[in-house]
Amino acid sequence: MNPLERIFLLLSILPFACFSQGISHPDTFPGAIIVQLPERNVAQLKKLTLEEAHLQCTSWRVAVEANNLSPWKIIPEDCADYVKEYMTGNGYEFDLQRVYNEAGIYARSVNLNGDGKDAWIFDVDETLLSNLPYYAEHGYGLEMFNSTKFDQWVETGTAPAIESSLKLYEEVLGLGFKIILLTGRSERHRGITVENLLRAGFREWDKLLLRSSEDHGKTATLYKSDKRNELIEEGYRILGNSGDQWSDLLGSSMSKRSFKLPNPMYYIP
Amino acid sequence: MNPLERIFLLLSILPFACFSQGISHPDTFPGAIIVQLPERNVAQLKKLTLEEAHLQCTSWRVAVEANNLSPWKIIPEDCADYVKEYMTGNGYEFDLQRVYNEAGIYARSVNLNGDGKDAWIFDVDETLLSNLPYYAEHGYGLEMFNSTKFDQWVETGTAPAIESSLKLYEEVLGLGFKIILLTGRSERHRGITVENLLRAGFREWDKLLLRSSEDHGKTATLYKSDKRNELIEEGYRILGNSGDQWSDLLGSSMSKRSFKLPNPMYYIP
Repeated sequence: MNPLERIFLLLSILPFACFSQGISHPDTFPGAIIVQLPERNVAQLKKLTLEEAHLQCTSWRVAVEANNLSPWKIIPEDCADYVKEYMTGNGYEFDLQRVYNEAGIYARSVNLNGDGKDAWIFDVDETLLSNLPYYAEHGYGLEMFNSTKFDQWVETGTAPAIESSLKLYEEVLGLGFKIILLTGRSERHRGITVENLLRAGFREWDKLLLRSSEDHGKTATLYKSDKRNELIEEGYRILGNSGDQWSDLLGSSMSKRSFKLPNPMYYIP
Repeated sequence: MNPLERIFLLLSILPFACFSQGISHPDTFPGAIIVQLPERNVAQLKKLTLEEAHLQCTSWRVAVEANNLSPWKIIPEDCADYVKEYMTGNGYEFDLQRVYNEAGIYARSVNLNGDGKDAWIFDVDETLLSNLPYYAEHGYGLEMFNSTKFDQWVETGTAPAIESSLKLYEEVLGLGFKIILLTGRSERHRGITVENLLRAGFREWDKLLLRSSEDHGKTATLYKSDKRNELIEEGYRILGNSGDQWSDLLGSSMSKRSFKLPNPMYYIP
């Protein structure tokens, strides 16, 4: 099946019902002037419906990336094929490449102090290491997260590198940044995480920060903010931060510049 | 021309050259394990190229919405038709509707104190009012910004309401939030801005904050942060913030929850 046929198959099996989200005409004030949408004739409607179903899943994904969605547990059922196509086709790869390009441009533009306190923070999962082999077996985010099964996967230590992140990592390292790895993984996974990172090609980080027992009750946003606060207290200047979750990037002691890697498969508050 | 024909026309006239952004194979470490991309045969390549051109413009737009792009002046020339199609087709409307839905869910979930200090901030341009009639005449972001021409448009006072924002505005007002309008427009445009807002159906705001002479040297991020700091000092709790630029949302005294409205046409630092 060629790619265009695949798109049409995808679109044709996406029910449209999920998108009727209570859109009613607003109770506007008298004389209000409103953006006019283009008129459409009935003959166009069916094809628009297919196009719209695809657009709605893109719209959902853009909302994820712009941090507009409330905490969400699983991907919308009607976007299951869309997300799979995105993750395994060119979409994910193009987005990763773009973030890599932008981060590299920024990294090269920074004047480093050179005192060993110029820091770039990297998250681990879906930032340096890819759990795509795991998520491919679990619906690309369609299944509820199962920490037991996911831990079993983590403990294999076989997560591959995200190629563009490995390139950025090497570039940032070469420029003289100190690399801080800040992950939501538990301290008890330190050994296997180090092993996996080395196997995937990462090296020479300054610190690998994992959740200790006192961090386990915190949201990722709070835990990572606390860790950034400590880094600032130690004299680090956080100049760059790469993460696939907004909870990697927002909060206190935010980086001078943050880079949001794509991830439509799961959300961590 | 039906919508699918339009897509193919769009794709067929998008040159691919712009997307070769120096993608070279990384100098990976020995033994590194890397995500494997699916293999493709030569027969698929041409169609993938058309698909890829469209995907690259979507990727650019996602990067804009995720705040990953360095300051940018104009939209990529090769995405000119894509952005026009997005702004005038269903894409922009779907994205606006989704932000409206999410903001409404959040607004209804907030427990208000009711002392008149529960605040929701709205930006004006491309948030409450649409300048699409102006940008339609100026390449949807393809032309360099011309402040003289744009001011002439502003002074007509005819910018229409963004329908979903008017609905959210009314809902937020009805829930008991105090509405603060915080805009990068100049104080000298206060009169025409009030006139335009009323004409478009907006009413009963608590404050309309515009740039005074002392604010003109500041970035939007700094100017808006300073204004939010002042609001906090006055006792307001900033519970919601709607804006089409990240400079509306990031900085100090950030809102408890922010909503990024779509805007691929221009960037304000």
